[in-house]
Amino acid sequence: MTKKLEKLPPERVDDLKRAGLKIYQNPAFFCFAVDSVLLAWFTRTNPKDRVVDLGTGNGVIPLLLYGRNPDVEKIYGIEIQEKLYELAVKSVALNNLQAKIEIVLGDLKEAPAILGSGFDVVTANPPYRKKGDGRLNPIPEVAIARHELLTTLEEVVAAAAKLLKPRGAFYLVHIPERMPEIFLLFSSYGLNPEVLLPVQPRPGEKVNLILLKAVKGSRKKLVFNAPLWIYEKNGEYSEMVRRIFEGEE
Amino acid sequence: MTKKLEKLPPERVDDLKRAGLKIYQNPAFFCFAVDSVLLAWFTRTNPKDRVVDLGTGNGVIPLLLYGRNPDVEKIYGIEIQEKLYELAVKSVALNNLQAKIEIVLGDLKEAPAILGSGFDVVTANPPYRKKGDGRLNPIPEVAIARHELLTTLEEVVAAAAKLLKPRGAFYLVHIPERMPEIFLLFSSYGLNPEVLLPVQPRPGEKVNLILLKAVKGSRKKLVFNAPLWIYEKNGEYSEMVRRIFEGEE
Repeated sequence: MTKKLEKLPPERVDDLKRAGLKIYQNPAFFCFAVDSVLLAWFTRTNPKDRVVDLGTGNGVIPLLLYGRNPDVEKIYGIEIQEKLYELAVKSVALNNLQAKIEIVLGDLKEAPAILGSGFDVVTANPPYRKKGDGRLNPIPEVAIARHELLTTLEEVVAAAAKLLKPRGAFYLVHIPERMPEIFLLFSSYGLNPEVLLPVQPRPGEKVNLILLKAVKGSRKKLVFNAPLWIYEKNGEYSEMVRRIFEGEE
Repeated sequence: MTKKLEKLPPERVDDLKRAGLKIYQNPAFFCFAVDSVLLAWFTRTNPKDRVVDLGTGNGVIPLLLYGRNPDVEKIYGIEIQEKLYELAVKSVALNNLQAKIEIVLGDLKEAPAILGSGFDVVTANPPYRKKGDGRLNPIPEVAIARHELLTTLEEVVAAAAKLLKPRGAFYLVHIPERMPEIFLLFSSYGLNPEVLLPVQPRPGEKVNLILLKAVKGSRKKLVFNAPLWIYEKNGEYSEMVRRIFEGEE
């Protein structure tokens, strides 16, 4: 083993189980989680849609969105962390998707300045916890992905609202304890919540994730869906989540 | 049958199945519904608590709250519709609870002026629909109970906030499509949502009712509970709701 290889983090290539897509992950500092898979499944795109994923991490959401709908016009992913940006760029190249997916190194606050506006769909799986709410993960990449160290919920919502065209849709995954604040921010930035999908760890348990669809300038009434759950009581993935993972949903 | 009796609406006395309580109902214009039973069950009172129920209808919520906790200091119910007010007064007398429950004829907007402030708990099962949202029920009492003809959500929230002492709790039952607006109003009036309990008609179906607890001036994080459902798929009451109805919960 060469010196160089020893210093490289142990990257690996994983199968996304959708349209033959593969993704670079690095368990040392970042692997995508079920949250991202659920968000990509929850997001609806149409042919020719232009899409932005805010804080794209290793690019899993753009890849999954492309896998569900190869007829999108273009998906941009913006990521502020260089190591994650590089993983995402490598994954796009590995799948030969440079024409469809573009990863941008930058701060999501700058996304409207960098990418413009008029987008059909914006997605975000942002850090869930405020600065100071619980201990930071010792791995900086993970800490930044989990805590609002480099961005805030308001900045995410503001960026989404600026990027979207009128009637464009914002899809967000977050934790329920931030839901009241999310509704306030949606209202401040002209985003109307249309769909709420709660997620439970297991049936009968408290909701620990929420998926939200908000539409810029719409007046539709909120639909509050029945929850889905990740695991059955026996600890196995639920049928629904298994089908989402396998690309059957 | 005398002339007088013929003109009287066909009132009846129903058993509330809690602490031997009975209630006057009039199917011609108003019977309490599962919403009120769920709200009373969801509401937590302590001994010596002073409580107000806004828009109390035939007084079912004060009666059920007393049934769950006879050690409350006093429960006021305010009702603007004279026929319902009279039913509520009769029910309180029937149960000999004049010392514990007082029904007030009046507009809930005036509740803080009439009753003062410093209350521990406020409850409300207000009209769910805005004026103009769907057809009005031809029976005026029902129309007023279902549509915001004599009150608005903002007036209900404002009255609750004024009645409550700091850290007092507001318990509200409403429909999910108004939830974003409810969170905005809670924020405007200093009420912090602490508990959300969704209710489904049947398991797996969309949520059609929400129970909310908000606390004046608190900073607790929202807990998003697993939904309960009213009916099982076979059309029978769910075990949970049957136990609530029977006073076992």
